[in-house]
Amino acid sequence: MKRGFGSDNHAPVHPQILQFLTTANDGHQPSYGTDTWTLQAAEKFRLHFGQQAEIFFVFNGTACNVTALRTLVRPYQAILCSDVSHLQNDECGAPEFFLGSKLITVPTRNGKIQIEDLDKAFVRRGDQHHSQIQALSLTQPTELGTVYSTQEMHDLVAWAHSKKLYVHLDGARLSNAAFFLDKSFKEITTDLGIDIVSFGGTKNGLMMGEAVVILNPQLAKDFQYIRKQSGQLPSKSRYIAAQFLGYFQNDLWRSIAQHGCEMAQLLHEGVLSIPDVQVTQTPQSNAVFARIPQTWIKKLRQDYFFYVWDENNFECRWMISWDTQPEDIHGFVKKLKELSYEVPSRSLS
Amino acid sequence: MKRGFGSDNHAPVHPQILQFLTTANDGHQPSYGTDTWTLQAAEKFRLHFGQQAEIFFVFNGTACNVTALRTLVRPYQAILCSDVSHLQNDECGAPEFFLGSKLITVPTRNGKIQIEDLDKAFVRRGDQHHSQIQALSLTQPTELGTVYSTQEMHDLVAWAHSKKLYVHLDGARLSNAAFFLDKSFKEITTDLGIDIVSFGGTKNGLMMGEAVVILNPQLAKDFQYIRKQSGQLPSKSRYIAAQFLGYFQNDLWRSIAQHGCEMAQLLHEGVLSIPDVQVTQTPQSNAVFARIPQTWIKKLRQDYFFYVWDENNFECRWMISWDTQPEDIHGFVKKLKELSYEVPSRSLS
Amino acid sequence: MKRGFGSDNHAPVHPQILQFLTTANDGHQPSYGTDTWTLQAAEKFRLHFGQQAEIFFVFNGTACNVTALRTLVRPYQAILCSDVSHLQNDECGAPEFFLGSKLITVPTRNGKIQIEDLDKAFVRRGDQHHSQIQALSLTQPTELGTVYSTQEMHDLVAWAHSKKLYVHLDGARLSNAAFFLDKSFKEITTDLGIDIVSFGGTKNGLMMGEAVVILNPQLAKDFQYIRKQSGQLPSKSRYIAAQFLGYFQNDLWRSIAQHGCEMAQLLHEGVLSIPDVQVTQTPQSNAVFARIPQTWIKKLRQDYFFYVWDENNFECRWMISWDTQPEDIHGFVKKLKELSYEVPSRSLS
Amino acid sequence: MKRGFGSDNHAPVHPQILQFLTTANDGHQPSYGTDTWTLQAAEKFRLHFGQQAEIFFVFNGTACNVTALRTLVRPYQAILCSDVSHLQNDECGAPEFFLGSKLITVPTRNGKIQIEDLDKAFVRRGDQHHSQIQALSLTQPTELGTVYSTQEMHDLVAWAHSKKLYVHLDGARLSNAAFFLDKSFKEITTDLGIDIVSFGGTKNGLMMGEAVVILNPQLAKDFQYIRKQSGQLPSKSRYIAAQFLGYFQNDLWRSIAQHGCEMAQLLHEGVLSIPDVQVTQTPQSNAVFARIPQTWIKKLRQDYFFYVWDENNFECRWMISWDTQPEDIHGFVKKLKELSYEVPSRSLS
Repeated sequence: MKRGFGSDNHAPVHPQILQFLTTANDGHQPSYGTDTWTLQAAEKFRLHFGQQAEIFFVFNGTACNVTALRTLVRPYQAILCSDVSHLQNDECGAPEFFLGSKLITVPTRNGKIQIEDLDKAFVRRGDQHHSQIQALSLTQPTELGTVYSTQEMHDLVAWAHSKKLYVHLDGARLSNAAFFLDKSFKEITTDLGIDIVSFGGTKNGLMMGEAVVILNPQLAKDFQYIRKQSGQLPSKSRYIAAQFLGYFQNDLWRSIAQHGCEMAQLLHEGVLSIPDVQVTQTPQSNAVFARIPQTWIKKLRQDYFFYVWDENNFECRWMISWDTQPEDIHGFVKKLKELSYEVPSRSLS
Repeated sequence: MKRGFGSDNHAPVHPQILQFLTTANDGHQPSYGTDTWTLQAAEKFRLHFGQQAEIFFVFNGTACNVTALRTLVRPYQAILCSDVSHLQNDECGAPEFFLGSKLITVPTRNGKIQIEDLDKAFVRRGDQHHSQIQALSLTQPTELGTVYSTQEMHDLVAWAHSKKLYVHLDGARLSNAAFFLDKSFKEITTDLGIDIVSFGGTKNGLMMGEAVVILNPQLAKDFQYIRKQSGQLPSKSRYIAAQFLGYFQNDLWRSIAQHGCEMAQLLHEGVLSIPDVQVTQTPQSNAVFARIPQTWIKKLRQDYFFYVWDENNFECRWMISWDTQPEDIHGFVKKLKELSYEVPSRSLS
Repeated sequence: MKRGFGSDNHAPVHPQILQFLTTANDGHQPSYGTDTWTLQAAEKFRLHFGQQAEIFFVFNGTACNVTALRTLVRPYQAILCSDVSHLQNDECGAPEFFLGSKLITVPTRNGKIQIEDLDKAFVRRGDQHHSQIQALSLTQPTELGTVYSTQEMHDLVAWAHSKKLYVHLDGARLSNAAFFLDKSFKEITTDLGIDIVSFGGTKNGLMMGEAVVILNPQLAKDFQYIRKQSGQLPSKSRYIAAQFLGYFQNDLWRSIAQHGCEMAQLLHEGVLSIPDVQVTQTPQSNAVFARIPQTWIKKLRQDYFFYVWDENNFECRWMISWDTQPEDIHGFVKKLKELSYEVPSRSLS
Repeated sequence: MKRGFGSDNHAPVHPQILQFLTTANDGHQPSYGTDTWTLQAAEKFRLHFGQQAEIFFVFNGTACNVTALRTLVRPYQAILCSDVSHLQNDECGAPEFFLGSKLITVPTRNGKIQIEDLDKAFVRRGDQHHSQIQALSLTQPTELGTVYSTQEMHDLVAWAHSKKLYVHLDGARLSNAAFFLDKSFKEITTDLGIDIVSFGGTKNGLMMGEAVVILNPQLAKDFQYIRKQSGQLPSKSRYIAAQFLGYFQNDLWRSIAQHGCEMAQLLHEGVLSIPDVQVTQTPQSNAVFARIPQTWIKKLRQDYFFYVWDENNFECRWMISWDTQPEDIHGFVKKLKELSYEVPSRSLS
């Protein structure tokens, strides 16, 4: 496959993480989460999120979100989430299937939820005809590559807690936000009062594996059963745990996040001055969103794969991976510039 | 962890499979099942199961079973399964959760379902008050390490199809049955008319990964959505596919199965003559079931881990892994003999 | 309780319907839908909807909708519905609970769905990450008391069928639409190709009872099990059937619908000229929607109960029942006029 | 339909209950459970069950059971129930559908659960692979017409509470048990520590309607949402409430129960001495279970409808209704005797 900017799922496993996998492949270990690798990895997570954190590994992002949410809501309760959230748009109805609950969406600005929109949605409390909102699910960074400031996140959590709602954080790329904000994981989750985090590994250089990080200790009690019943208990848990140990070793997580953010900045700078390329979001993590003329798309994709985010206006998403190289950026920018030059030449003829 | 006979989930990944994983870790690949590794692996499966087979990789055994069953039944329909089945006893209610359906259990002899018991359970057809049986789920080898003969399996499938029921096969260790019966996978599934198979990898030397093998083509149409909604679509599918390619390369699957069966025979022979060890099932795959005096269990476990299968009568399950060595067997048998000698000596004093 | 315009659920049972209930209370009848009253009522429904119609009685409107929809979608499939629909807003998440499916809402004009908005929502076909739309649910009359013309309904159904979607009709007050359009039930449902109808009784003078009317015969096969499993199989079915027989006898349904529409027109005419009363929808069934000054609400409710439809702009819903009398209308209009006069008088002082 | 012993659902509504329905049909009442009839009926229930009882009306027995159980278990938790329970056999999988939970069945003697069998089933606590038992569901009277003594019920509840399990009581015919035991409802439920009761009306002379009686106050908090989401909130609640007011008026409930028990005794005495009629259960409520020769069944049913309970051994269930008359019994016994005489005469020829 040609390289490109399609997804941080397209890159291979980071060598340091693969090395940990290989090292873990030694001798017998108990299954189902009681092996030494899993215990160590959980301990490592607690260093990052605080000592009250309870850690449960699962296989993928959809599952991480829905198993986390199973701790928060009963079927007659609803979850507030953004109308661009992965939860709402990209999980083939997994939330409704696993929870039996309604998602209530709120509009966003630059991918971020505004408190005034939450207020509008927070209606009909105690009305038996209406799903009762019980949780707020936020995404950090957002699906549009933007990052809530610590203050913004604080205010959203405070709003939720003032309404007695739980807060779930979809952190499939949380490390990028931590780097961007120059904060520890604890500072941007636990310290803000977030109740439960879906912590991503797969999109950040792992082979597969996510972690449900339970920060509100009351939610951890039955999680082992929820995970098993949801088909998410890894038999050979050591192989997910080892990947996370590799990910945290020598702050690899931070290096990968830094690389992603810097490459996105490089791409952003490269395309800013190209006529007909309209950057739609200020990049704050490892993605650049931009509108380009429809006619370019096919030509660009001959050399670099990427997705059209919005088929209605040809907004594209260019995603950086841990292995994206400056040359990839330069080549892509060059190609964009060539396409840009073609336009006037065409219009001259 | 000390070695032992606890589970085929306790052993490490087979080196050949790990090698394939490492090889697959090269360059970009599309995500979500469209990569070249996944396409190749599906092709390999079709060599083993027939050209009509449709293959979908998932993460673990529970998920493999419930996503397969989601193609067969609606919530008001029931599934016949054995009362010792993993489906009934060991999945924390995942079938009821994913399907909303009732499992109707039938008793077993030596782990095997008898047609006369199916007949007794197949009642109240067309009675709106009763869950309508729509599928029969069989396990091969059974949970007790026994193997249905081809004739037995043929008769069970014929019974089911005569009642217009689908047949699901839980094949978490199907390769052991293929070796024991000296048949190809196709001969023991497709050719018998089985509709859908949960094909296990994790317990046979893989790191993680199972395959839903759809043999009845009408069932494949919507499976991609079922898998995604069930939280079982691997983002980086190549890493499960590559493991299966390693598993099939040079018939590794058969070598592992042969080793498991032979080690089980060796263990069986070793314990047959030991007083107070009562083998409860004729071993036909990679497990030995035997009752031993309760007082031995703790002492045995000091050196070799294993599970007590039935707490009421101290029937134990001794499970072989791909890396079980003859010395493991010899050491374990020696220990059992020592415990056996202790008994008369104690009674002499 | 004082009389008012709160809901057509507030009125008592129509005497003719009660009379049928009393008559049905004679001797033994088989239970669970096989009694003579149920068979007669189904036959009567077929006179109104066509001979292919299959009829199943259930207890209430929420259940009528969700059991009907259980015939149309699997959990990974979505239902298109309006953003003001009862399904979306007023059933405490029953659709998500019963179906495990996502509702995808489209905006409305005067309560009606527009095809251009359906087109916008009909995206990501074949994308395994997205719930696949499988059905369109329409409401006739709409929740805002407006009625789709036969042409509008025809076009919506044609759009849906061109996309291979099923069409469900929420007809909790369908008789009002039939009267308004001066058509038979068959002309506004079966003849347009609608697949399944939730036919309301409770809001039209019955004690309790709705009918799932299956017009697409392929959908009827398993409905008896769906109904039973959903907790909606009436033990003494005759008592729901008898009510519907009373409802259809001598076209009582039409008299009630006519009365409701005429009383709504009377109310509409009465309030049109009142300053500060802003009618927001042209009444086409048995409801009037209007905005009034917030300060009036409490005072009005001292004499006549009604609901505020939209707390943000004080749009109110005034609902007619079969027993609403012209004097009720006159009294209410008089009260509104008095409140209207108070405003200038207050401002004079 | 001819009279018979098929079901207490076959009889008409008791005149006193119909009278209350008619009386309730006067003027406007608020909907959805806030009307004066509903408030009065709840008050009446509290007189019978104690002041802490919270009462919620629903439509039928299946729904009463599953909505009650929704307060007790999460999907990964299991419910212990008898293998002859309505919950297990006669609700088309409604428990699995509404709860997503597993039912774990225990065998019975004379329809009654034994504590030793509960002990055997109460295994694998804290094992994440196994559904965790969270509730015990008992039926009083049992499906075989027998009645747990107060001591037996006390012991079962004590067992459950010692395991920290909730106790649900399926009381579709609870009034018969109260009469048989000569106790108040409070003495046989609340005072024994039962947490929640499904209190039946439909089988005891009502038109339709059951009551979820919540005795453990912690369980009532969210029940209104559970009921609504389950499609069980009656719009015109007064018409269910009024029936129960009629049922309790002048202890009608007790008269009906007494009549049912006495008629069952009369039938029992009548058939005891008939050769080839083998009574299988000592009648303690309004049913007689007996085996008869297969050849009699068709002939008997020509005059009196009834069900064969067990198709394997021709055990029949003869059910008494509130309107069963001594002549019905006499005629049926006479017919049985005639069939009995035919046998020797045939063998003489």
